[in-house]
Amino acid sequence: MEKLIITAAICGAEVTKKHNPNVPYTVEEIGREAEAAYNAGASIIHLHVRYDDGTPTQDKERFRVCIEEIKRRCPDVIIQPSTGGAVGMSNDERLQPIELLPEMATLDCGTLNFGGDEIFVNTENTIKYFGEKMIEKGIKPEIEVFDKGMVDYAIRFAREGYILEPMHFDFVLGVQMAATARDLAFLVDSIPPGSTWTVAGIGRYEMPMAAMGIAMGGHVRVGFEDNVYLEKGVLAKSNGELVEKVVRIARELGREIATPDEARRILGIKKR
Amino acid sequence: MEKLIITAAICGAEVTKKHNPNVPYTVEEIGREAEAAYNAGASIIHLHVRYDDGTPTQDKERFRVCIEEIKRRCPDVIIQPSTGGAVGMSNDERLQPIELLPEMATLDCGTLNFGGDEIFVNTENTIKYFGEKMIEKGIKPEIEVFDKGMVDYAIRFAREGYILEPMHFDFVLGVQMAATARDLAFLVDSIPPGSTWTVAGIGRYEMPMAAMGIAMGGHVRVGFEDNVYLEKGVLAKSNGELVEKVVRIARELGREIATPDEARRILGIKKR
Amino acid sequence: MEKLIITAAICGAEVTKKHNPNVPYTVEEIGREAEAAYNAGASIIHLHVRYDDGTPTQDKERFRVCIEEIKRRCPDVIIQPSTGGAVGMSNDERLQPIELLPEMATLDCGTLNFGGDEIFVNTENTIKYFGEKMIEKGIKPEIEVFDKGMVDYAIRFAREGYILEPMHFDFVLGVQMAATARDLAFLVDSIPPGSTWTVAGIGRYEMPMAAMGIAMGGHVRVGFEDNVYLEKGVLAKSNGELVEKVVRIARELGREIATPDEARRILGIKKR
Amino acid sequence: MEKLIITAAICGAEVTKKHNPNVPYTVEEIGREAEAAYNAGASIIHLHVRYDDGTPTQDKERFRVCIEEIKRRCPDVIIQPSTGGAVGMSNDERLQPIELLPEMATLDCGTLNFGGDEIFVNTENTIKYFGEKMIEKGIKPEIEVFDKGMVDYAIRFAREGYILEPMHFDFVLGVQMAATARDLAFLVDSIPPGSTWTVAGIGRYEMPMAAMGIAMGGHVRVGFEDNVYLEKGVLAKSNGELVEKVVRIARELGREIATPDEARRILGIKKR
Ligand SMILES: [Mg+2]
Ligand SMILES: [Mg+2]
Ligand SMILES: [Zn+2]
Ligand SMILES: [Zn+2]
Ligand SMILES: [Zn+2]
Ligand SMILES: [Zn+2]
Repeated sequence: MEKLIITAAICGAEVTKKHNPNVPYTVEEIGREAEAAYNAGASIIHLHVRYDDGTPTQDKERFRVCIEEIKRRCPDVIIQPSTGGAVGMSNDERLQPIELLPEMATLDCGTLNFGGDEIFVNTENTIKYFGEKMIEKGIKPEIEVFDKGMVDYAIRFAREGYILEPMHFDFVLGVQMAATARDLAFLVDSIPPGSTWTVAGIGRYEMPMAAMGIAMGGHVRVGFEDNVYLEKGVLAKSNGELVEKVVRIARELGREIATPDEARRILGIKKR
Repeated sequence: MEKLIITAAICGAEVTKKHNPNVPYTVEEIGREAEAAYNAGASIIHLHVRYDDGTPTQDKERFRVCIEEIKRRCPDVIIQPSTGGAVGMSNDERLQPIELLPEMATLDCGTLNFGGDEIFVNTENTIKYFGEKMIEKGIKPEIEVFDKGMVDYAIRFAREGYILEPMHFDFVLGVQMAATARDLAFLVDSIPPGSTWTVAGIGRYEMPMAAMGIAMGGHVRVGFEDNVYLEKGVLAKSNGELVEKVVRIARELGREIATPDEARRILGIKKR
Repeated sequence: MEKLIITAAICGAEVTKKHNPNVPYTVEEIGREAEAAYNAGASIIHLHVRYDDGTPTQDKERFRVCIEEIKRRCPDVIIQPSTGGAVGMSNDERLQPIELLPEMATLDCGTLNFGGDEIFVNTENTIKYFGEKMIEKGIKPEIEVFDKGMVDYAIRFAREGYILEPMHFDFVLGVQMAATARDLAFLVDSIPPGSTWTVAGIGRYEMPMAAMGIAMGGHVRVGFEDNVYLEKGVLAKSNGELVEKVVRIARELGREIATPDEARRILGIKKR
Repeated sequence: MEKLIITAAICGAEVTKKHNPNVPYTVEEIGREAEAAYNAGASIIHLHVRYDDGTPTQDKERFRVCIEEIKRRCPDVIIQPSTGGAVGMSNDERLQPIELLPEMATLDCGTLNFGGDEIFVNTENTIKYFGEKMIEKGIKPEIEVFDKGMVDYAIRFAREGYILEPMHFDFVLGVQMAATARDLAFLVDSIPPGSTWTVAGIGRYEMPMAAMGIAMGGHVRVGFEDNVYLEKGVLAKSNGELVEKVVRIARELGREIATPDEARRILGIKKR
């Protein structure tokens, strides 16, 4: 089995200090959380940024300072900005961080509900536009999949030239598609040979899904974006604690942890 | 195995006379197509309506005259209006046909892309609102599922009281989630015990999916909404031809065809 | 989709004239049944042979005369002798027909129960021995799979050099593993890319499984060995009737029928 | 989720002191290993017995003294003798330990290869005989499943009255059926609602399968019978070490460990 790539989703756009006071907003806090995750074993930082008051933003300059701060603390870590943005943003607003030429960025492969009246919109045209931009800039997309048909979309977009193969998938389970072993196994069976994958279980499904990802030979994403608890009723003190837990499980299962450079090799990313 | 319930989706909102001149627009044409499907073996008419120029509408009065025309020709058939509507419509505009107290109506259980810049929006709040209205009016929902997570949504909404059990699902495959045996088998494995299901394969997947539905003990939807071809390169002359093909396959597999009253019993619908 | 290869299992070792008087025993009867199946569309004859009193045998000479009779009537058909044999036979007794250098032969990939006190024995050493002999003689094995783990066995034996890739599988369902869409889809997902497969449903599962095989892009086996009924309560007059039914379903689904030479190309068999 | 039932398969019939010097043969050694597993968190001891020289036996008297020794050390643990026996044994020889009226016993639900020329024989008649005896004596069977079709067998035997429901399954993966998440998820989806299950991964699959069992809400079997290594290249000093590892993973995933009495309640076993 390949070594395990741990992605830390340290911040997110929806979780706040009300959920867990350790959710980072400021540049300094984001640097601190990235560093804690990195020291614990994360090789990829999945990054949203916020203003100091916690308001999420896709602002290029804010991404720039946050990325500089992370690189200062963890020079070799892979940074993966989110292109999710917020309701009402244009494609180009959402794509701002990719102008900074990160090694990776997210590419959400479909539209779905986010509860209440909210929708997370990624039309076919948006997906194609994002895909083309990432090819143009040499950025490896992490294809975010919230439901099985989004894998089928990605396969079609790859065939049509909007995504390069081999693809790297992130299965985000517990939002729309259930976070169960049968769902995860079905998704893994659905991706093209040669693809890589990671799994992110939302809320209380974070660690069970992580354990399955480790045992199945996939990769794992954890962090405050997906879950703020270390265990039932106990808030995590940092993203580092969540990564440490993943590392302990991996060790029990004999799975070694990938460094950022090993992750680059596994994912086929050329270091910038 | 239960007898086979055939639903005819005779019209749809997106397919036009340009795709197949036999697509019905006028009241007379809709009556003609419903009758042909019914005579061939359909026990449910899945109904969208249009103005005479082909423009789709959710107008209650247009639904009323179309339903009257269908009932005049096929007195006992089950009529299942669509609540899909069109982009920009309010919930109540979409729900107009249910004020006519049909025995069934569709309940789309999630939001997804419909190609290009189009989205088919069904927020959580919309689904809950539609579900409550159908319970209030004693209408059996056909839960439209375009991807696996929509089954998981439906299960949650049922638990929360917005949908009554046992549920009846319609798996619409080939839009977002692929139209394959493994996808269909996975969906069937995902619904609660006691549920019923039908499958609608889009485009060239219509008949392969129908054959699987028949062989698996599920039910089948065909019609111009999903596919306008009888076979490769040959346009169907009517919805009746598509239903006849399903009946022939069912006969080869020893599966009998349900009458409307048998369909009511299988689905747990009290005749109005 | 590839054209459909229909294999006719015209005789078997367990079914008798008591089950259906048209089950062939004599050379003439075997010729007649092979010809009827071939004329209806079968491109492969899966062959067991018997003495005139119905006793099954692996005798090389009996195979020789039966094969000659079939070739006289259907010169280009592919003949696939069974190597199943009977309880208590040695490996070499079971392998007699492969000395006649047929284009194919069966290779059963595991041991399982056959009801009551009976066992169908294929130890690991037997499988390896059979595999090596078929490689040596240039015979394409049809890998008979009665349960999922037999696929896993075959993959291991291929890795170890006892079976050449690409492999051709025959999923025999309804003996040990259930004959359902979910089982079939799971098996199909389990075989290596580039493999081909056929499905044989036993008893009343014959035609539902055939319909799925057609719709899924696989291939189909039918015949008296697996089922003697044309429909519920109606005995088939010949193997030809069963093949005709498969052809009718294939036609409804737009799937063309492979000739023997087309089957050779699909399976990678060089004509002797 | 239910608390986690850990079964320790402390001895087995095939593994020897050559594989790991801590494999128990004598009554004292078996007592020692059972106690270590129990102290670590096992609530069920899956038991084979041997003579002092390591020869496996189904001898009733040997079972009696071993069970007494285990009960002396762990008074409340559930003891589950194996009825697997060895090649050439009669049904009644294999069934000897159930005359001691243990609370559980194994019921192997099919015949399969065990490597080389070896077969593990459980004909249909044997399974029925074992099932009837266990019903007669009020013993809860652990249904050993090595391949998917063995679940289908068990379901049939339950319908025919040879096994009482709800059933408890043990999925032994890595012998015939592969030890992967997709196989395990498929098996879990295949058992009747209300059933319970445990998973035993063989060799290097032991801990990955255990992690999946924990994360999926199933139960777990580990022990020298299935695997003698604590980690790659490191022999386990005792069955206790293997159970401890399971307990650590369960703790990371927030799953509590069942006591023997809690296991009885979960499995529906009345304490003798
Ligand atoms: Mg696959
Ligand atoms: Mg199920
Ligand atoms: Zn994110
Ligand atoms: Zn519709
Ligand atoms: Zn045969
Ligand atoms: Zn054992």
